Amino acid sequence: MEDETVTPEGLPKRTGNNLDPWYHHYAARAAGLSASEVRALFAVASRPEVVSLAGGMPFVSALPDEFVMGSLERVMRERGPVALQYGSGQGTESIREHILEIMAIEGIEATLDNLVVTTGSQQALDLVAKLFLDPGDVVLAEAPSYVGALGVFRSYEAETVHMAVDEHGLVPAALQETIDRLTAEGRRIKLLYTIPNFQNPSGVTMSAERRAEVLQICRANEILVVEDNPYGLLWFDRPAPDAIRSLDEDGVIYLGSFSKTLAPGFRVGWALAPHAIREKLILANESAILSPSVFSQLVIAEYLEQVDWRTQIDTFRGLYRERKEAMLEALEDHLPELSWTNPNGGFFVWLDLPPELDSKAMLPRAVRELVAYTPGTAFFDDGGGRHNIRLSFCYPTPESIRLGVRRLANVVGGELDLLTTFAGTGSLQFDDRVRRTSTPPSNLA
Amino acid sequence: MEDETVTPEGLPKRTGNNLDPWYHHYAARAAGLSASEVRALFAVASRPEVVSLAGGMPFVSALPDEFVMGSLERVMRERGPVALQYGSGQGTESIREHILEIMAIEGIEATLDNLVVTTGSQQALDLVAKLFLDPGDVVLAEAPSYVGALGVFRSYEAETVHMAVDEHGLVPAALQETIDRLTAEGRRIKLLYTIPNFQNPSGVTMSAERRAEVLQICRANEILVVEDNPYGLLWFDRPAPDAIRSLDEDGVIYLGSFSKTLAPGFRVGWALAPHAIREKLILANESAILSPSVFSQLVIAEYLEQVDWRTQIDTFRGLYRERKEAMLEALEDHLPELSWTNPNGGFFVWLDLPPELDSKAMLPRAVRELVAYTPGTAFFDDGGGRHNIRLSFCYPTPESIRLGVRRLANVVGGELDLLTTFAGTGSLQFDDRVRRTSTPPSNLA
Repeated sequence: MEDETVTPEGLPKRTGNNLDPWYHHYAARAAGLSASEVRALFAVASRPEVVSLAGGMPFVSALPDEFVMGSLERVMRERGPVALQYGSGQGTESIREHILEIMAIEGIEATLDNLVVTTGSQQALDLVAKLFLDPGDVVLAEAPSYVGALGVFRSYEAETVHMAVDEHGLVPAALQETIDRLTAEGRRIKLLYTIPNFQNPSGVTMSAERRAEVLQICRANEILVVEDNPYGLLWFDRPAPDAIRSLDEDGVIYLGSFSKTLAPGFRVGWALAPHAIREKLILANESAILSPSVFSQLVIAEYLEQVDWRTQIDTFRGLYRERKEAMLEALEDHLPELSWTNPNGGFFVWLDLPPELDSKAMLPRAVRELVAYTPGTAFFDDGGGRHNIRLSFCYPTPESIRLGVRRLANVVGGELDLLTTFAGTGSLQFDDRVRRTSTPPSNLA
Repeated sequence: MEDETVTPEGLPKRTGNNLDPWYHHYAARAAGLSASEVRALFAVASRPEVVSLAGGMPFVSALPDEFVMGSLERVMRERGPVALQYGSGQGTESIREHILEIMAIEGIEATLDNLVVTTGSQQALDLVAKLFLDPGDVVLAEAPSYVGALGVFRSYEAETVHMAVDEHGLVPAALQETIDRLTAEGRRIKLLYTIPNFQNPSGVTMSAERRAEVLQICRANEILVVEDNPYGLLWFDRPAPDAIRSLDEDGVIYLGSFSKTLAPGFRVGWALAPHAIREKLILANESAILSPSVFSQLVIAEYLEQVDWRTQIDTFRGLYRERKEAMLEALEDHLPELSWTNPNGGFFVWLDLPPELDSKAMLPRAVRELVAYTPGTAFFDDGGGRHNIRLSFCYPTPESIRLGVRRLANVVGGELDLLTTFAGTGSLQFDDRVRRTSTPPSNLA
């Protein structure tokens, strides 16, 4: 008879399951790390024949061919041993000086000392969550909100509660009402997470008045504001209002990034934090990665020093504006019965589907018809977004965007035909559907 | 009368303290993030006149002047838009292929699929801790162990329990005894964290027999082994035994790094994990940083492709061997009454002080006499290490090492003189002290 407590090699067996011997060993927070249900599909969607309106990749090919070579050469020639070495957990002084200059464009006054450089602003967000979120804590966020932030909050066992947004951004009355309700329930609200400029995924920008109101409500309720601003400089017709951080030094952690205005391949972002918090952020950064890449920081600082980066950002602006216009025109041409947002910057348009259609259920058909998008459900922590789609115009060319939207219109039309056929009575009127799309859940005019 | 609930600007006041308005808002785990008590002193110790035997910085100046320039140019010329873009959360295929080749040197057979690239191996350790450690969990580790690992475990509210080490590494009987004791106490042991090669800080290498014994005990008790191996290829007289991971694919997470064998400035390390775990590691990586730097990965892969990196590692070996010998000779010349380890690789020597001396209390005097070291207390989570010092020979030249050890001997002598003077009776014999240094706590022959 075989001994069932040992392996064929005579080693002790573990009690996990066949798929994962360590199944019972994970921390509770690991349950929050689940793969997106559409992940496998996106692997298929990366084939060249598929027009992807799904990703948020900046169009780095618009950078001049030799753009970083000069900076690379100078850094290696003049500061090689420093660039290759460990650095400080706070980041190099030269890059922090440039970051101050960049943030000043949006009205922010700050000191070098309160800046912490991170591996992209995603890591800054992870550190803030690690520092503040206990299991069961609440983070307030826009409805919808950035999928990568929702994942971070879940990974620390916090819950995201979404609040209504209109064309001026987060609705202050909804914020106050949510705070009152959660407080009455005894919930502990730690953070307000907001992307005030050209929000991911809705494309909406918070008005200057709203910024002041939201800040005032958060102060009164002792809620720390996390202002995530990767797209701020990429406006189309007029600059976004000054950053929320420009109104309050002690109540806001501001997150910034070089990933959208320069290149994500270097993985350099930052947090500007109230003084006492920034000390803890540095410790958390050192614990997580020892120090951000000195090499990346020096190359970016050298680039900012030597190159006319404002003009380069203008180039990006023009490029993305053109692509947004191509997308909106194509939507008007091919899906005139639907509604969508008209962003003044950034990468994304938010589309309302007829409420009969489920954006996640429709995705396999879309990929089969060679167009990919991100279903709205990715941007809600509460099951919302089923009748929404995020469309990205940042990466594909205007021609591809037009082709992609045409294919999407075919998919939507096909799904509606199917519903009409199976509804049998034929009583489903297209006009009814249009009216219903202009109501919540997303309420993005 | 002033309204004490508002600020002079009329904004609502917060209830924190004057130093930190958010004092009451941090997560419980933030308490684990405390600055090292010797941090401020190390800032002083970075002045050029101080000989620092404290840091663990590799001597990157030994890399050929133009060593990365060729790789940088090729990457930008041939794969620029890829290098500058976001990448996969698992890492590029080309660098993972090279990592397999490197790990094969230490007997590891693995597939590309089970490798995850991270922002240095520090981040891999952080992700493993995040994935497995609930508050109150126990991590077993060598006494002493790597300060950066202890910090990570604390930051997830886990406790590190240290176990005795001798000249062959972790003592299996101590491991078994510790497991039995903690299990009887109802504690949950999640991980064994070990640095089997040229350990940081002790310099000790675990023998091949011990590796098998330790693995067997961990398997029998369902404890996952985390094998941290940044120094393995940097041996002096003979290679270290094969990695623990070479003995067991399902029970070991292996952490590796380019920081010591190439350059830390790129921040590229990796985890090789059992299949089911690696999927969760990728998700955790994406949550924390989206993707590791594609630019850094491509540059390193290109370097490994084009350059004879084995010869470069030989150069590092010769350099560090020479520095270790300089350190040991200087210790014999100036502190013959003390005992220390004789590492066969890596960066560190572990020194036993006379038990009357407190290594942390002595540090300010040392810095005043222009030599810095790391007090042994940094490497214990339980208050141990007061009579130990970690000396690094990786960064200073042999001449600086000799000067530093001479200064250290002056400091030790001065402290002992002081004790003798104040002891009054003069009964404290130096020979007594010598005998006592050869006994535990550290027990590193």
